Amino acid sequence: MRKQIDIYSTDYIKYSDCEVDPNIKNAERGWSMSYIGEFLEFLSIPSVSALPEHKPDMEKAAQWLKTRMERAGIQDVRVIPTEGHPIVYGWAGAKEPGAPTVMIYGHYDTQPADPLDEWVTEPFKPEVRDGKVFARGAADNKGGVFPAILAVEKALQGDGLLVNVKFLFEGEEEIGSPNLKAFLTGNKDLLRCDLVVSVDGGMHSREIPSLTTGSRGLCGIQIEVQGPRQDLHSGGAGGAVNNPLIALAQIIASMRDREGRVLVEGFYDDVAPLTQAEREAFAKTPFDEDAYKEGAGVPELFGEPGFTVVERLWARPTLDVVGMWGGFQGEGVKTIIPARASCKITCRLVPHQEPEVIVALLKKHVEKHTPPGVRAKATVFPGNSRPYVIPHDHPTIPVMSKVLKEMYGREPVTVRLGGTLPVARAFLDTLGTYLVFFATSSPDENVHGPNEFYRLEEFDRLVDGLPVLLKELSEVLRR
Amino acid sequence: MRKQIDIYSTDYIKYSDCEVDPNIKNAERGWSMSYIGEFLEFLSIPSVSALPEHKPDMEKAAQWLKTRMERAGIQDVRVIPTEGHPIVYGWAGAKEPGAPTVMIYGHYDTQPADPLDEWVTEPFKPEVRDGKVFARGAADNKGGVFPAILAVEKALQGDGLLVNVKFLFEGEEEIGSPNLKAFLTGNKDLLRCDLVVSVDGGMHSREIPSLTTGSRGLCGIQIEVQGPRQDLHSGGAGGAVNNPLIALAQIIASMRDREGRVLVEGFYDDVAPLTQAEREAFAKTPFDEDAYKEGAGVPELFGEPGFTVVERLWARPTLDVVGMWGGFQGEGVKTIIPARASCKITCRLVPHQEPEVIVALLKKHVEKHTPPGVRAKATVFPGNSRPYVIPHDHPTIPVMSKVLKEMYGREPVTVRLGGTLPVARAFLDTLGTYLVFFATSSPDENVHGPNEFYRLEEFDRLVDGLPVLLKELSEVLRR
Repeated sequence: MRKQIDIYSTDYIKYSDCEVDPNIKNAERGWSMSYIGEFLEFLSIPSVSALPEHKPDMEKAAQWLKTRMERAGIQDVRVIPTEGHPIVYGWAGAKEPGAPTVMIYGHYDTQPADPLDEWVTEPFKPEVRDGKVFARGAADNKGGVFPAILAVEKALQGDGLLVNVKFLFEGEEEIGSPNLKAFLTGNKDLLRCDLVVSVDGGMHSREIPSLTTGSRGLCGIQIEVQGPRQDLHSGGAGGAVNNPLIALAQIIASMRDREGRVLVEGFYDDVAPLTQAEREAFAKTPFDEDAYKEGAGVPELFGEPGFTVVERLWARPTLDVVGMWGGFQGEGVKTIIPARASCKITCRLVPHQEPEVIVALLKKHVEKHTPPGVRAKATVFPGNSRPYVIPHDHPTIPVMSKVLKEMYGREPVTVRLGGTLPVARAFLDTLGTYLVFFATSSPDENVHGPNEFYRLEEFDRLVDGLPVLLKELSEVLRR
Repeated sequence: MRKQIDIYSTDYIKYSDCEVDPNIKNAERGWSMSYIGEFLEFLSIPSVSALPEHKPDMEKAAQWLKTRMERAGIQDVRVIPTEGHPIVYGWAGAKEPGAPTVMIYGHYDTQPADPLDEWVTEPFKPEVRDGKVFARGAADNKGGVFPAILAVEKALQGDGLLVNVKFLFEGEEEIGSPNLKAFLTGNKDLLRCDLVVSVDGGMHSREIPSLTTGSRGLCGIQIEVQGPRQDLHSGGAGGAVNNPLIALAQIIASMRDREGRVLVEGFYDDVAPLTQAEREAFAKTPFDEDAYKEGAGVPELFGEPGFTVVERLWARPTLDVVGMWGGFQGEGVKTIIPARASCKITCRLVPHQEPEVIVALLKKHVEKHTPPGVRAKATVFPGNSRPYVIPHDHPTIPVMSKVLKEMYGREPVTVRLGGTLPVARAFLDTLGTYLVFFATSSPDENVHGPNEFYRLEEFDRLVDGLPVLLKELSEVLRR
């Protein structure tokens, strides 16, 4: 069955109905819209990297990409095994020799889909409603990966490429990219490039384009405080034995003051001070503190004095307790001095803090601030990440700005991510190449949650914008 | 089947075998040993007050007591219903008019028996091994209650009583005596007496008799700290939103210093300073700090400077966190700013601290010390207890000392309980009558744990000692 589709209508398209007539044209756009059917097909593969039962689906998704990339005219396409899920690689040459090389990065794996019962339609039976494709992975990141292929296909079928393009689509982003760094290190020649463009990422909002210039690092420790060998009766021991819960509270309280300053000795030593230019750029980013406060449901915003909220979120390090427990947690009361208390602490890091240095400072602090009568042990969580920032004066910045302005009709704002993007840092640490974000995803798309969606309008925007970016980059990256 | 029993042998007696020949005499003691069979029968009734399915057993145990008390010549024996389990009352008159009245207090309910699989023999199938009766409730407190009846029976069958004796055996001690106070208040005339002698309690050790002169009170609050409405991503909120776990840690840390002094304003205001006589009496109590430290498994003992361990345990108030929780407690790490943090705090109180005053100070402290950006709420646990101390110069003290010395061949030491005995305070607050402890239980009897036992030797010691005490008390209580 064939069906006429107007992608911007409120038509309700089910994947099963969707054998899209490749001859249907988008009147405004003038090129084949068969990609909708292909996109839905790609989305219907449940490539959940975290769940072992989806291993065959991971392979299937990688093969789907390979086939499609080859059809697009991309060369040397390979599905390269790793210790986990495979990486899909490909290459498309510039029409002239000596051109710079841009690597496009994205990922074809998705988050798990649960809670399933909160989805309006099934996560791996994609549907289009109101111009939005609903499916797990629609926005994160298949809706970035597939348009990137289409964009290069379009260039190859048209005037040709002004830069060499390499593709690296990984299958483990949602589980922390455990094999990416080793892969990059082991394939430096194959992957050599002048810039990485990530189609994973997103814009500040649908209306306001943004230039993401960095992300914070992450490290953490777990603290275990041991008091008595086993829980003691607080009648028989209260006054003679220290309480590990109080001791832990004292250790935690010694790490941060009431206003949010971290008190761990040396914690701020390596922090790059914010430049005037950075502060000005950040200040231009619209940030509605009242709406943010309302959204978080807190009585007031909070943090290190002397910095704006945006500066604190993007360019200042933090120390947070993410979990804490010990003793009796049931109803009522149990009169004990508990044996043990535990907590998990994570720090968000900014340039030039190094995770190894920070966890060493944390451990030293715990040692120094453990009260008498208990023993405390701090262990470091594996999987630390270094912070990432592309220099403010990097030659790609004005190019990115210009292209984004063309795409959105509005000057982009500069943002950083308060969270961690280990991938960005991985390319810099292995290939020595900076990464820029070029992704049209917007913050309302229920990424990682139920009813994830991606707007076909944004899909188009990426297909159209990427060739422009590649063309502009060919100028500044030319050596 | 009848069986010859030598209670001090290593004979293994099962309750089912135990139809004891009432004519067997203990050569050393000269009176009928049929009590062993009776004691085992009493112990075989699973009078677990906490478990609803044992309600009929509670009634059965109360009736068993009534029958046995009547047989002992005790008068006006009643099983008086309460809102929970019944109280057994009885009365035995002095041979002469105008005699003072002593009330004997004990309880016929027991703790639950679990963990069942750690018992060598079943908790409600009492067995005698090595002169010890193994059963739930053997030491706590049927082994106090039944000898009290036998002691009075013995006196009534002999020279008669020099004091009037009232009995009050309750069935709810193990669940916190929820109906005792109302019962005392509602039956003041019936229960009027000059002293309460509790056969619930125990000695400092098997070798060292002790005079228990007081117990600490108890009160507590739960603190809930609310941060954001729900858990937030620490990347997107770290630096802008306060962390309720850190806020709670700061509140807790503000309550006690590193050396154990409570910092809550006004906390020590009503504490009665230790007198020189009290300090001297406490100092005479053998207390092996190394053994205590070893037993607790702590690197060092801990507490308020300026006081001995014994003073801190018995006569100084404490503040402890008995439970604390919030955020992610699983394996690894979850990068969140948690929505909530909670803790439970209890204080052990000493004269003349009042629970209501102390919880009000705690609540005020929480209010004053809550950091910005979070909301904190303190709620008071029901069931507070006032501390109890019998005055050091109370006329019964030298009498108790003298009798204990006769019973054990050694001067008793003065002790207080670091724990809470709401019962002691209940008699003082309702009848205005002090309570003294006269119980031969020793600390090694696995009370509340598996394999609880009571030594028949201690049983005998109580049967013999109580009449002596009653006789001596008749002198000092005479008005």
